[in-house]
Amino acid sequence: MGSFGNGPAGDRTGPYGGGGGGGAGVDKGVDFANYFCTYAFLYHQKEMLSDRVRMDAYYNAIFQNKHHFLGKTVLDVGTGSGILAIWSAQAGARKVYAVEATKMSEHARALVKANNLEDVIEVIEGSMEDVSLPEKVDVIISEWMGYFLLRESMFDSVICARDRWLKPTGVMYPSHARMWMAPIRSGLADQKSNDYEGAMDDWHFFLEDTRISYGVDMSILTKPFAEEQKKWYLQTSLWNNLHPNQVIGTAATVRELDCLTATVNDIAEVRSNFSSIIKCHTRLCGFSGWFDVHFRGRMEDPAQKEIELTTAPSVDNGTHWGQQVFLLNPAVTVSEGDDVDVSFAMTRSKDNHRLMEVELDGRIKQPSGNVLQPFRKMFYVE
Amino acid sequence: MGSFGNGPAGDRTGPYGGGGGGGAGVDKGVDFANYFCTYAFLYHQKEMLSDRVRMDAYYNAIFQNKHHFLGKTVLDVGTGSGILAIWSAQAGARKVYAVEATKMSEHARALVKANNLEDVIEVIEGSMEDVSLPEKVDVIISEWMGYFLLRESMFDSVICARDRWLKPTGVMYPSHARMWMAPIRSGLADQKSNDYEGAMDDWHFFLEDTRISYGVDMSILTKPFAEEQKKWYLQTSLWNNLHPNQVIGTAATVRELDCLTATVNDIAEVRSNFSSIIKCHTRLCGFSGWFDVHFRGRMEDPAQKEIELTTAPSVDNGTHWGQQVFLLNPAVTVSEGDDVDVSFAMTRSKDNHRLMEVELDGRIKQPSGNVLQPFRKMFYVE
Repeated sequence: MGSFGNGPAGDRTGPYGGGGGGGAGVDKGVDFANYFCTYAFLYHQKEMLSDRVRMDAYYNAIFQNKHHFLGKTVLDVGTGSGILAIWSAQAGARKVYAVEATKMSEHARALVKANNLEDVIEVIEGSMEDVSLPEKVDVIISEWMGYFLLRESMFDSVICARDRWLKPTGVMYPSHARMWMAPIRSGLADQKSNDYEGAMDDWHFFLEDTRISYGVDMSILTKPFAEEQKKWYLQTSLWNNLHPNQVIGTAATVRELDCLTATVNDIAEVRSNFSSIIKCHTRLCGFSGWFDVHFRGRMEDPAQKEIELTTAPSVDNGTHWGQQVFLLNPAVTVSEGDDVDVSFAMTRSKDNHRLMEVELDGRIKQPSGNVLQPFRKMFYVE
Repeated sequence: MGSFGNGPAGDRTGPYGGGGGGGAGVDKGVDFANYFCTYAFLYHQKEMLSDRVRMDAYYNAIFQNKHHFLGKTVLDVGTGSGILAIWSAQAGARKVYAVEATKMSEHARALVKANNLEDVIEVIEGSMEDVSLPEKVDVIISEWMGYFLLRESMFDSVICARDRWLKPTGVMYPSHARMWMAPIRSGLADQKSNDYEGAMDDWHFFLEDTRISYGVDMSILTKPFAEEQKKWYLQTSLWNNLHPNQVIGTAATVRELDCLTATVNDIAEVRSNFSSIIKCHTRLCGFSGWFDVHFRGRMEDPAQKEIELTTAPSVDNGTHWGQQVFLLNPAVTVSEGDDVDVSFAMTRSKDNHRLMEVELDGRIKQPSGNVLQPFRKMFYVE
């Protein structure tokens, strides 16, 4: 066979890799194999630690709001290499519990010791759902955000930590999160469309070859092959760091979350209607989704300095999250003042609760009142 | 976080993807998530069905040895899209059981029907270990070979099928398999060495940056980071289709398997000594591993026409398996007549029984009797 692990087709991830996984009843072993293993490598930790937008936001959030940490107990959910725990301790925390599901915990422990913080920080290897702490905490800090905020479903673990271990007066870091969407133009639309057409052309040569050389008619598989390729090229959202100029309409908030009160139900299914006003005559090639989070403390105990971490399209401040791009096919010509109304639904994939499915059901109203061809499309955030 | 599924670092597979998995006691859910999912895509089936060397070998093996199939019962282990089952039926089999663990079975069933063979071929979805057949079979056919023959450990399932379902007079397709190794020269040695050095240079800038900008000394992680990068760049075997000119010494058989008698013990651990005579003055950059299989029938019931499928370096007949390259670091200058003696050991990875670890323990004797610096190196076939 040759399953392409390190082979010629090994560069195809997404739907072609790690597709399995637990559904509603999550198998922990499968989840670990599919998800946590990624974070067990220093290479990936370094990628995240080199994301200056991410680093600056958390660093400033902590050190410009030391009153939340001084003499306090802190829980870091998914500490990775331990950076947020270390900063919390450096900002004066009395005790920091740093929970990490992977073997990265051993590196975190070494790093804590090398920075002389082993009296303050206790690194605990285990999944947040299983861990028991000796006390409730004043602060829960976590960098839990996945692509388009909710991919990875790691916020579930933060909610679990909050409900079990945060004092009634406790503070969440970050305290708020928002999902955004905006219409965009992008060369990716034509590129992916061409890729798809090329794959199908190639398929037809393959069919002919298999029939003539090997006496088997495979044309019955054309429809499922086309569906598979369409999913891969046209229905799977893409990672991209867009230029702000590519955003062609007003950006809309799809969902706001208060990290102190949000429930798993609030995020397992996100439904929202948004509308965007087109800014210029151009092609609507699809939509971009991103997020921001804020560090505001809580109403009775606010931040002294409110910090924002945004992953919006930016010339100088791109992040490793980038934006997720959802392509329309074909693109639609739009004009200044057109109103794009979209009904948005994001649900978790039945096959893997850490992946998402997004449905966009939209229509474009021209200022004249004329309504352009509506669109309805399903996407996979993989 | 942003676990790089479809992101900027998403192209890094191998040790950075799907690393988990069952060890000795295999968790079926994990194994399915890590392994079988790959074969559930028509794109990958098409890649294999487009490998002419592979296709021609099986096609010729069947149709030039119709006496093994005419009026016989056949079991196809891991039928995928069903091609071997279909050919077996077209060659005159009375009944073909086509077993497939993934949902690809549904496509196989459609293909069988479209080719009017549903009266002969019964597609069974399930893992070979769990499937029950109504009768014993005359032939077991399977395309079970992974990179360097044994990666994927799929031959285990063929052995299981043989021991349970093959008649005492039955025939295995293929009937024999061999693992080969040969010394090679390759620009990959310098390239990967440079990549490693570059990654470590970058790490040192990262350390300085993290210390100055964020007040954390991460130098304690230098050693584990270097080990991780070394494993990635220098100790993970590479897929390559080598030019025969790159083979610089005699090729040696590392292991021969008779598919009729081999046991799981024979393949779970492969130990062998081989030696190779260098053909010219050049640089020994490492070793290449490949395999061939033969279709010979069985001694009492031999093939009329013996067919070979080889994945050896070739100008015109490369396969999707390519060869696995094991790099030496640094390369060693060798001369015509030098004798490379290698003690070879291949074991299954403790973390994932479908992946392999290879140890090469070697020395180079010059014709003068002088012995060059010995080498001992561990590799991961991932």
